[in-house]
Formats: sequence, structure tokens, C-alpha cells
Amino acid sequence: MAKKNLIVGQSGGPTAVINSSLYGVVSEGLAHDGEIGEVYGMINGIEGFLEDRILNFRESLSGEKLEYLKHTPGAYLGSCRCKLPESLEDPVYPLLFEKFEKLNIGWFFYIGGNDSMDTVSKLSRYAAQIGSSIRIIGVPKTIDNDLVHTDHTPGYGSAAKYVASTVREIVLDASVYEKKSVTIVEIMGRHAGWLTAAGALARKYEGDNPRFIYLPESDFDTERFLKDMESALDKDCCVVVCVSEGIHDAEGKFICEYNSAVGTDTFGHKMLAGCGKYLENLVRDRLGVKARSVELNVSQRCSASLISAADQQEAVDAGIYGVQAALKGETGKMVSFIRHAAEDGSCSIECGLEDVNAICNEEKPVPSEWIINRGSDVSGEFIKYALPLVQGQVEVPLGRDGLPVFIYRK
Amino acid sequence: MAKKNLIVGQSGGPTAVINSSLYGVVSEGLAHDGEIGEVYGMINGIEGFLEDRILNFRESLSGEKLEYLKHTPGAYLGSCRCKLPESLEDPVYPLLFEKFEKLNIGWFFYIGGNDSMDTVSKLSRYAAQIGSSIRIIGVPKTIDNDLVHTDHTPGYGSAAKYVASTVREIVLDASVYEKKSVTIVEIMGRHAGWLTAAGALARKYEGDNPRFIYLPESDFDTERFLKDMESALDKDCCVVVCVSEGIHDAEGKFICEYNSAVGTDTFGHKMLAGCGKYLENLVRDRLGVKARSVELNVSQRCSASLISAADQQEAVDAGIYGVQAALKGETGKMVSFIRHAAEDGSCSIECGLEDVNAICNEEKPVPSEWIINRGSDVSGEFIKYALPLVQGQVEVPLGRDGLPVFIYRK
Repeated sequence: MAKKNLIVGQSGGPTAVINSSLYGVVSEGLAHDGEIGEVYGMINGIEGFLEDRILNFRESLSGEKLEYLKHTPGAYLGSCRCKLPESLEDPVYPLLFEKFEKLNIGWFFYIGGNDSMDTVSKLSRYAAQIGSSIRIIGVPKTIDNDLVHTDHTPGYGSAAKYVASTVREIVLDASVYEKKSVTIVEIMGRHAGWLTAAGALARKYEGDNPRFIYLPESDFDTERFLKDMESALDKDCCVVVCVSEGIHDAEGKFICEYNSAVGTDTFGHKMLAGCGKYLENLVRDRLGVKARSVELNVSQRCSASLISAADQQEAVDAGIYGVQAALKGETGKMVSFIRHAAEDGSCSIECGLEDVNAICNEEKPVPSEWIINRGSDVSGEFIKYALPLVQGQVEVPLGRDGLPVFIYRK
Repeated sequence: MAKKNLIVGQSGGPTAVINSSLYGVVSEGLAHDGEIGEVYGMINGIEGFLEDRILNFRESLSGEKLEYLKHTPGAYLGSCRCKLPESLEDPVYPLLFEKFEKLNIGWFFYIGGNDSMDTVSKLSRYAAQIGSSIRIIGVPKTIDNDLVHTDHTPGYGSAAKYVASTVREIVLDASVYEKKSVTIVEIMGRHAGWLTAAGALARKYEGDNPRFIYLPESDFDTERFLKDMESALDKDCCVVVCVSEGIHDAEGKFICEYNSAVGTDTFGHKMLAGCGKYLENLVRDRLGVKARSVELNVSQRCSASLISAADQQEAVDAGIYGVQAALKGETGKMVSFIRHAAEDGSCSIECGLEDVNAICNEEKPVPSEWIINRGSDVSGEFIKYALPLVQGQVEVPLGRDGLPVFIYRK
């Protein structure tokens, strides 16, 4: 009987290290050539797979070029935002498994966040239902760090390092003038404030900027925010604050929606802009001081120069661990991270497995006890939690053009 | 007679390497302790100097800590935006020179852009008028690269490297989905398009994104822009374009002003947002495709992780050269860069001196012959010009928190 083949896909928004996990799965798959035949990749996730768009890693990417995956942002295989039907009676399921059989797939890996784990859950439940022997494993990734049953997620550490380093730089930049000013840094995270909280790591000493940190886990009160700014400006010339893109008022209305309530463009459509821009205009108008907003935007999830070495290694390890688990017969699981605290205050991270059904469609917020000062800061507990995740620097090779060399499908 | 002292200040918007030039001036000043007494720094430029806010480098920053200046963004001494009066009869001039005399200043260095060179010009003309022997030298810095009589300016190479690397990452990030999309990257540069042009360096192969580059040197035609987008979307799924914040229509109206013409906030004030946001909304409305805008914002001028090693070294050299020139008796000059092309296609950069009066209040645009495709791209000549300026990587030391260690006045 021919050896079974492995297939891997990427799904959801990219991170700086989603390709590191792809590297982990592919390199470990290729290394087990006694048990695994071909190592395939789905182009654009399950959506592309349904259109038979796949590639063979052994033919198209191996050796040194495969190593380049580790520092290449974006999703090498392309991604999709496809949620499979809730009903396992839907004809898409037999269609998918027909295609799996045609390709002689024995192992299926899906690298992604919440929605991707939903796909892993559905496929593994359908496999059990029809008695398929395909092993189906989820490898987590999300800069949002909002998956339950894992200490943290690959992708978060690098995004947190980007946020912390960049906010530290923005603080230096904002501090050069004597003029009173407020700088608002808008950070990704619609529902969970993990990434915004990483702004606290930027402080160089106690009392340093960013002076305030507002997460979507708390209700945002615009008037209290203005009072926070006023009292801070009384003491310091330069105030920098971090806000999550998902901050909302007590009624649940996103602060960014106040932009579109007031601005209409020449075509009669609502202006879409972030909460940072709204608060910038608010501070300028109400407090009469210089105001600037900085939306960190997609660089949070695709900056190669600020990849956390710890995060990169863990992302690779998660991929490797997933392949090893599947080879041992595991299925319907997501690779998780377990933290072991050492007596000297340091910690180590170990991979584990969790039932994927308990993970998909759940969200892990920042614990309320870590949110302090009436929702305007995070506690030392958060700092302690986050610091190990942002450690170490990754050397990105430069080309003859002086710029980072990435690997990509053309 | 007591040795004369040196004083140095920083002025205008910061760059990633303005502190490298400060390092050059201070280290060279301290090294010449046979001729130079104390090395002072003005806090917040000439504005702070008028309030007697100075520091003594020998006492407050030397040794290893001084080295940290080279990778620390922002302006270590603080900056100002102060233009001295046009009339040399103004009482501020005798006041300044009285203060110079009190501090026994023999050498005055000012690191900055256009407006700072204006200060150097006025002070050196006043010095000549009163027969003062103070040597007054300007050290250039600006990410805008718009100073005349110099091949380029310190600060531009690092900003260009940041733009090129970040746009290359954004292109990878934007390319993961199959959905048609336009991503607009808004880059600093109100009047000169040098920095936006650096987006062209991000291309990995011919025809790669960013597909279009719009500089403020050309009139921007919104309808032609939409046609450019349409024709590009016919061929490719993902289109990324770079626009300068200063793009304007044929009547000279800034494109970003169309935002404030349409959006008014809850307080009746005009919404201030960039041209990227305007074009994003325009593309979404008129073409019905997914659109996103990314304003690169202050990270362009303060990213330590993407400092160009070439730029850093040149910024240090400019400071050193300025001190050496002043010791030789030069005054009223700005340090310039002269490019020597080698036969093998490489080039070397040498420092020179230019009359500061010929530099201040002038602006150098991107040459019109380098702007091609009806103002939607730059030519290979620009690439050839810019490539040597973005070479090399700088290692930034990480602290125990895993983040870059900077030096700062608290």
C-alpha cells in the first residue's frame, strides 16, 4: 500500500510567524519520509483546496528556501476566510473527503485562529462519523492571543514585541518638543485587549509613557478619558496612550463608529476611520492641545524585523509537535502551549494537545483582575505574563538591495 | 586663556539617526580636548538655549552610553521649531551672543533641516557683522531629503529603508486572500516625494507591487487614479499603491483636504485625516472592492530596527566632519555629501562643505525626468540613486525585557 500523504493549509489573517508553523509542519513531514509520502500545501486554505489548488512542497520548496519561511511574513500558501457549514449533512463534507481520498491524504493540518479551529472541529467530527482514518490537527496562530486552553498563541509574541518596541520609539519621537501634546496609538484587537496591553512593556521606568492603556474588556468613557488626559498634561508635556481598536462605550457602541456617525464623504457614504482618529480630533477640540493618532495597522502582524525569537521557535515547535501527534494517531486536537514556572522566576513553554471542540468559537479576554486604574492600565501580572513571549531577536537575511529577503509564490 | 567650549543643538522633526550626528559632533568634540574645553548640548534647540537650558556631555553622557545615541531615535537633546527673526537688528541676536560669550563658546553646531540651516545662516551672518570669532556649522538631517547642494541628507536612508521594507511586508500581507483589494500606503513628504519614491525599492521582481507610486511633484488626478486601479485589478487580485501625504490636484488643493471638506465632527470641527483614508473610501465606493489604507506615520522617522547602516555611518561622519571643519576655521557652512561613482557601478560618499546661505529656504524635488508613467511611477534612475543609501543593518542591543535599549534624558 502506498504511503499516505500529508496536507497543510493556512487560514485567517496572517501573522509574522504563521509561516514558521508552516515550516514546522512541512520540515517535520518531509523528515518522516518513512511514514509520510508527499507533503502537500493547500493554496488559499480549504477554499482553494475545493478548487484543487495545491502544491507539492518536495517539488516546489525545500532546502534553504524552506528555511526562509521562518522569517517571511504573510501566509506563504495564501489564506481564506471560509467557515464550513454547521450541518455535517452538507454536501461539501463528502466532496472534501472524496478529494482527500483521491490525494491519498492521511494527515491534515490547518494553521489558524478561531475560525480555522472550527474547520478542524467540523472535519474531525465528520471523519469520525464516516469512519475515516485521516488524522486532523489544528496548529494555532493569532496575534489576538484570544484562544482558550492554551497559555498563549503563536503570533502574539511577535506582534506584542512590535507593539512594545514601536510604542517605545513613538514615545521618544513624541517627547522632543516642549509643546503640550497627546499621542494616541491605536492597536489591533476588536474584542480582546492582549495586544494593546503589550503597550505597557514599552515603559522604560515607572510612570513613563504610555501613561494610559485602554482595552476593549472595559467600557470606555469618553469624558473620563478626557479627564485622564487633563490630569496627565498637568504633570507632563507629552502624553502617549494606547487604545484598542475595539474600545466601546457602556452601551456597546464602538468608539470608531462615532466617526462614521459624523463624517459622510462626497458620495454620501459614511467615513470609515479608527477610534484613534476620533479621539485625536476630540482631544484637539476639547483640550486645545496638539494631538496625533498613530494606527499601528498591519505591520503589527507582518513585521519581520521585530519577530520575537521565542515566538518564532514556539511557532515552529507547534508545527513539529502537531505532526508528531498526528503520527501517534491523535486527531481532532489543537496544539496548545503549557507554561511551567521555574523557581528562579523564569518559565518554560511545553507543547500539549487540547480537544479542538472546546476551543473553537470561544474567546479568551484579558483577565479582569489584570485591568487596573478604572480600565486605564494593566497590572504587573500582565507584564510578568508577557515578558517571556517577546524575548530574542531574529536575524533576517538582507539581499543585494539591502532589504529583507522573503520567499513567496509568484 | 581658557580653551573655548563647543555647543550643539538639534532642531526640527527627529529622524532615526539625528542622534548619530549628535554622537559624531560630541565624540569628535570630546576627542579634541587639546583645543576644545567643554562640550555642551542645548536642550530644545535655540529656544531652550535662550532659557539657559543646557547640559554638559562630559558630565552627563560619555563612554558606552554615548555609543547608545547611535541607535536611539528621537532627538536626545530635545528639539524646537523656532525660526529666528529675519532682521539681524532684532535684540535676540545680541542676547544670544552674550550668552555664547558667557559660556565661552567657540564652536556652534546645529543639526537639522531647512529651518535649522536658516538659523545657522542668520547666526553666522550676525557673527560676521559683529566680528565674533565663533565658528558656526550646520549638520543636515531630514527624512524628506529635500536639501539642495548635497547628494542626499542623513536620515533619508533609514526612512527609505523603513518604507521599502515595510511596503514589501505589507504587500505580502495584502496578498494572502483571493479577494480583489486595493491597499493604499500613505508616506510622509508634504512637498518632496523622495520618501514615497522609496516604495519602489520594495518590488521583488518586475511588475510586482507596489504597482503605482504617486508623488507630490506631479498633479494628482483622482479619475485617472481610479482608472489606474481598475486596469490593475483586471490583471491582479491584489493592488498596492504608495502615495505621498502631499499629493494635490491640478488646482493645488491637497487631496487630504477633501476629507475635511466632507467630514465634520460632533463639535463642528473639520475631520482631519490623510489622503490615504480619502482614497480608501473613494476606491471602496467607486470600485466596490475591498480597500485599506495604511499611514506609515512617525515610525518612518523613528524606527530603530530598520536603521540603514550606511545612513547611520554617514550621519556620524557628518557630525565628525563638521567639528573638523570648524576647527580649521570654517563657518557659515553646512556639511554636504558628494557622491563619487566607481567604474564597477558602486559609489562612495564623501563629506564636503556648502555655503549655508545657498541651502536654507530652498527645496529639492525629485527630478521630473525620474517621474514616469504620467506621474504614477519612478524610473530606474531613482532606484540606482537610492539603493546605496539603504544598505546594511544595525544591531540594536536588547535589554532584559527583550526590547531595544535606548538612551534618554528623564
